[in-house]
Amino acid sequence: MIETPNLDNLRIILVHTRNPLNIGAAARAMSNFGALRLLVVNPYEKAFREAVSAVGAEPLLANAEEHDSVSSAVRDCGLVVGTTAIGHRELHHDLYLLEQAGKKIRTKLAAGRVAILFGSEKTGLTNSELSHCHWLLRIPTREAHRSMNLSQAVAVVLYELSGRTVKLGAKNKLGKTPAEMETLDRISAALLAALSLSGYIHPRAQSKAEEKLRRMLRRFDLTASDAEVLLGMLRKILWKLREAQR
Amino acid sequence: MIETPNLDNLRIILVHTRNPLNIGAAARAMSNFGALRLLVVNPYEKAFREAVSAVGAEPLLANAEEHDSVSSAVRDCGLVVGTTAIGHRELHHDLYLLEQAGKKIRTKLAAGRVAILFGSEKTGLTNSELSHCHWLLRIPTREAHRSMNLSQAVAVVLYELSGRTVKLGAKNKLGKTPAEMETLDRISAALLAALSLSGYIHPRAQSKAEEKLRRMLRRFDLTASDAEVLLGMLRKILWKLREAQR
Repeated sequence: MIETPNLDNLRIILVHTRNPLNIGAAARAMSNFGALRLLVVNPYEKAFREAVSAVGAEPLLANAEEHDSVSSAVRDCGLVVGTTAIGHRELHHDLYLLEQAGKKIRTKLAAGRVAILFGSEKTGLTNSELSHCHWLLRIPTREAHRSMNLSQAVAVVLYELSGRTVKLGAKNKLGKTPAEMETLDRISAALLAALSLSGYIHPRAQSKAEEKLRRMLRRFDLTASDAEVLLGMLRKILWKLREAQR
Repeated sequence: MIETPNLDNLRIILVHTRNPLNIGAAARAMSNFGALRLLVVNPYEKAFREAVSAVGAEPLLANAEEHDSVSSAVRDCGLVVGTTAIGHRELHHDLYLLEQAGKKIRTKLAAGRVAILFGSEKTGLTNSELSHCHWLLRIPTREAHRSMNLSQAVAVVLYELSGRTVKLGAKNKLGKTPAEMETLDRISAALLAALSLSGYIHPRAQSKAEEKLRRMLRRFDLTASDAEVLLGMLRKILWKLREAQR
């Protein structure tokens, strides 16, 4: 079972988004990662709530808050973080890569509300919008192609915020009992016999081949159940080879 | 400056993708994170290369390889990882959450080619497609809304692979070149033929047996040289069985 950390205190704020499909797709990513509070500031398309890209996140999209300014959208938050693809434009703000930013945000989320702002697809956050932010975060994309799709950026940020603290309970390695050496020796013997009957191994080279085979089978790191299957197969093949011999 | 780890050895493989916009958007995410090798297997829309969503990743999309089977797409890879939103469906495979999967993949990337498979938007990877995989990874989404948008899933996986500061321990298992999938398929075919001739597999159960065999061979985690030896053995046995048939 996967436990996701509580993102009730997180606000995702999409500012001046041009394409309503991006709003819907962002809503889906939010729902995937358990961040359920979406706010939009002056979206270009007023009918954004009908975006078909919200697959499974329609209730979240329907409940999105609409604001006409960043200042109104962030008013009850204790920390406001802006996202940017640009390096240090004018460096009015501190800039953190997502991994480090994630740590700071998670700490704050335990105590109060945090807003993360995503700007318009064309221009990102304007200087005026950035002025509401405490600091900025950047997803570590390539210098040669920095700018991400908006909803993918939302997904990656939420993955960093929600995915890290997760622990998978009891390890998922059911049925992975290793094969016992006795079974391996039986496999080895059956394979050796089949190889002798086929003429792969010269009778005089038998003992050397046996050693090699034994080492190889151990490298395969067989589970108990795979070993049983393999042994069954080899025995059947061996039986057929012997029958042909008669 | 951000140093992204080298993803030259990574292959992103989109299988049976229905919406060409998702292929374009995946290409963009790949370009953002420096994973430049895209392969598509039987996309629904043949004109996928014109997807407008590839903003900035047009060259990557233009260079995408087209394949008509998973087996052909992964043939030169040493590790094949499937992605799934489903928990443990039938547990034919080990399943790792993305963070842990990322560590395993990064280690393998240092030594050889790794493929990550993404299934169709509707159904994910089929059992037959999954049978080409060594193990599966899952992005830790909420139980209540597991299934992500395809291109967002690609973005999140690539962020995990590229964004982390990479430290490769000394334990890089040099000289342990993994077997390529093409060799595994040959082993599988030879073994299958031998098992049919021996009467181990009923002709009507052939395709199911083939899937099982494929999964089992991938669990063995063969090195390139062990795989060659095993293939040589099986061919000799097969030759003998065929000779006896005449």
